[in-house]
Amino acid sequence: MSHDEQLLAILRKRPGHYVSGAELAERLGVSRTTVWNHVEALRAEGYVIEAATHRGYRFVASPDRMLPDEVRRGLRTAWLGHTLWAYRETDSTNDIALARAAEGAPEGAAVLAELQRRGRGRFHRKWLSPPGVNILASVIFRPQLHPSLVSQLVIAAAVAVAETLRALHDLDAHIKWPNDVCVGGKKIAGILAELSAEAEQVNHVVVGVGLNVNVTADQLQKDLRATATSLCIELGHAVSRLDVLRRLFLDLEHWYERWRRHGFAPVKARWAELSSSLGRRVEVVSGKAKTTGLVADLDDDGALVLRLDAGPIKRVASGDMTVVG
Amino acid sequence: MSHDEQLLAILRKRPGHYVSGAELAERLGVSRTTVWNHVEALRAEGYVIEAATHRGYRFVASPDRMLPDEVRRGLRTAWLGHTLWAYRETDSTNDIALARAAEGAPEGAAVLAELQRRGRGRFHRKWLSPPGVNILASVIFRPQLHPSLVSQLVIAAAVAVAETLRALHDLDAHIKWPNDVCVGGKKIAGILAELSAEAEQVNHVVVGVGLNVNVTADQLQKDLRATATSLCIELGHAVSRLDVLRRLFLDLEHWYERWRRHGFAPVKARWAELSSSLGRRVEVVSGKAKTTGLVADLDDDGALVLRLDAGPIKRVASGDMTVVG
Repeated sequence: MSHDEQLLAILRKRPGHYVSGAELAERLGVSRTTVWNHVEALRAEGYVIEAATHRGYRFVASPDRMLPDEVRRGLRTAWLGHTLWAYRETDSTNDIALARAAEGAPEGAAVLAELQRRGRGRFHRKWLSPPGVNILASVIFRPQLHPSLVSQLVIAAAVAVAETLRALHDLDAHIKWPNDVCVGGKKIAGILAELSAEAEQVNHVVVGVGLNVNVTADQLQKDLRATATSLCIELGHAVSRLDVLRRLFLDLEHWYERWRRHGFAPVKARWAELSSSLGRRVEVVSGKAKTTGLVADLDDDGALVLRLDAGPIKRVASGDMTVVG
Repeated sequence: MSHDEQLLAILRKRPGHYVSGAELAERLGVSRTTVWNHVEALRAEGYVIEAATHRGYRFVASPDRMLPDEVRRGLRTAWLGHTLWAYRETDSTNDIALARAAEGAPEGAAVLAELQRRGRGRFHRKWLSPPGVNILASVIFRPQLHPSLVSQLVIAAAVAVAETLRALHDLDAHIKWPNDVCVGGKKIAGILAELSAEAEQVNHVVVGVGLNVNVTADQLQKDLRATATSLCIELGHAVSRLDVLRRLFLDLEHWYERWRRHGFAPVKARWAELSSSLGRRVEVVSGKAKTTGLVADLDDDGALVLRLDAGPIKRVASGDMTVVG
């Protein structure tokens, strides 16, 4: 532990109480001036630490920043998120996670960032998020799986995100096939799964989640205001990103384990309940092709099964879906 | 062009003829001693250049080494192999190609090596090859494709390798599902495709080919002698690796283009002719599962379609196949 971490640990053990500068200096083996410098460094990270003459220092609050120590504190997962890398700024959390996975990072290792310079969604589309207000997290999974079945993991992750929003803040979250989570028809989260594989077997999958937490309507790009939302916008107040992230990790772990142990059936059953499109007429645009039909089912490889107006069934493996009529 | 390359180009333009040291020195703008040093450097690379007093230097032969300039000379592809990286030694040509592809290398770019420290086949099995005698090549492809269909590219590549061996050296090469090419029932080449993808769309695929060219029976590991072979072993003499590689690149390009333009049907039709297992009884081991049946078909995702003894049809997507009885 660094001196900063030691100091924080000492203060945290006596919540609401002052610890004298002399005691801290002795326990850290440094001067009182150095103690003061460490307190200042922690304050710069966003920690709220009160100082009072003759009494010492008192821990008041943690920053709502995605620092590994903060995330781990209170994290109730068995394995997901135990290995963590957090960046103030990076090109893309998925890129970092893919690189770490290739180097052998364990299943469940996660990468967080306050800001992505080149965040992306499906098909290399941009994913925009102002710094420090939302969740940008990528998690490494190592399922022994044929590459064609990775869409099942995207569905499981979408279910997990929707469950987090429902459990923690009672939001009426739905899943928009294949990889978006919406509240009131507006997108609140997106999922981007990327994989490294042999032709017949996955090496690893990185699941990136972009979840709008505290971004305000003013901060959203104008052209996105009609179609995007956030927890803050829906609830009318900011919430703890750390609480959301910890719950998200717990739900991701739960649905991943459920999928691996019991197969796709339970995931698909919950997806059916949370889907915004099952049983509705939709249009799916895939490249230059456009298909319109009734959503009849979700296939085992994550494809949407449409009943066309003329009667026959058509599978659509990929594309952009809109509910019509 | 470096001085080495310039010197080589001048000598090559006058095959069988001597070029004087004075002329070479003048055209390169260097001393005659420097010309001599360049000739020595080229000889160290394996070029055969004769020197004769008062006459000068004469080009005799190129090394059978996978130098990019040598490969490109006489390469008749439209695009495959035009961008080339060659290594004397590397961990794995697939790893280098995957890294180059992630950095934006063009379709058809290829990585060659004389020796792989950590060569691998499917399921992270070792791929062993003594230095400097065989072909170790990895090619970058960028098909717009669902990840489930990458096995089609493995099949197309296997067809290409078999065609190369048939066209160039009249060998009776067959394909052993999914990714081996055999002569007389012995393995002569293996293919390892690795991909980077989103859940619904491939970013890039690297197709690695390990092809035994001039490895001798003595050089083969003892436990492999009954099951592996090489061009040299089959033909009774060494052959030019460069000729084989150039033809392989041509066949790979041909079958890749055919697949992209006309779909899987023509690839599958040729596979059916070259398959060592179609219509035969096989056993496929996938993890702990063992399936025995008659090979009835190849599915569109590269899976083997077996007719079980009891009558029903079963698809096997992955595994190790042996022809039985």
